[in-house]
Amino acid sequence: MPEQSPIRPTDSEARALARTLIDTARFGALGVIDPESGTPLVSRVAVATDASGAPVSLISDLSHHTKALEARGDCSLLLGEPGPKGDPLTHPRLTLQAKSRFLRHGKPGHAELRARYLEIHPKSKLYIDFADFSFVIFGVERAYLNGGFGKAYELTPKDLASAP
Amino acid sequence: MPEQSPIRPTDSEARALARTLIDTARFGALGVIDPESGTPLVSRVAVATDASGAPVSLISDLSHHTKALEARGDCSLLLGEPGPKGDPLTHPRLTLQAKSRFLRHGKPGHAELRARYLEIHPKSKLYIDFADFSFVIFGVERAYLNGGFGKAYELTPKDLASAP
Repeated sequence: MPEQSPIRPTDSEARALARTLIDTARFGALGVIDPESGTPLVSRVAVATDASGAPVSLISDLSHHTKALEARGDCSLLLGEPGPKGDPLTHPRLTLQAKSRFLRHGKPGHAELRARYLEIHPKSKLYIDFADFSFVIFGVERAYLNGGFGKAYELTPKDLASAP
Repeated sequence: MPEQSPIRPTDSEARALARTLIDTARFGALGVIDPESGTPLVSRVAVATDASGAPVSLISDLSHHTKALEARGDCSLLLGEPGPKGDPLTHPRLTLQAKSRFLRHGKPGHAELRARYLEIHPKSKLYIDFADFSFVIFGVERAYLNGGFGKAYELTPKDLASAP
């Protein structure tokens, strides 16, 4: 059987689904390169968006993923968590490939993002002001949408732009 | 404030929790290195275990993660999905760092694993016999258990050994 491309042409429905997955995500799986071994490391992180619609997280300097992102900003974020029922492989999810940058306490834009993040993750008020916690903003370079078995799309940053 | 290690000493409770997360996982987030960009790529995969207790998945040659694992077997698997309620960051999860190997149709052990996998994932009977689907077995080299905020452990393969 010859290999067929499973990628469908991007349409407005795929763009809207990808945008919704980003806007509604409250946590996700972050993949980084472990600086010690040079191999992948995936961990769970809380997720929100900044005012431009970029995905963001709030992470501690004590965590492995923060040390990895300080060494190398290339990362991947999987968004779109299935519920407890049904087949997780039919649930839509979005793989982002991104370059991360840190936004630390006292830097321009931190206060605005802090306020926005607290609305989305109210419980983070317990640690958001700790010195070792920083925001990380994910600059998306490429995205793979899987809308369920056989429904795969490749999306560009432009495809993911927030609605005006 | 001096940096403190957030890692607790491994105890039998941590070992048992990690083993339970592996044994009960039905899907997880797989992190690989994208051979095109050299950067991380995280995607959702179905998960089960083989008879030795090693995590396994059933993946298609058409997927990005399969091509990545063929190029380089180093990967990471995040297991332990939170339910729809509560704070996902307090839900226990396990990050595995592993070397993957493929087990393809007709190879020794494939029939046994096929039978076991079908019991755990009955719906996979729709595609488990497709030529492009292979098992991938994860040889765990290191594990990070996060039992909730501030409860972090580093585990060895021996810590994860199945109960006799």
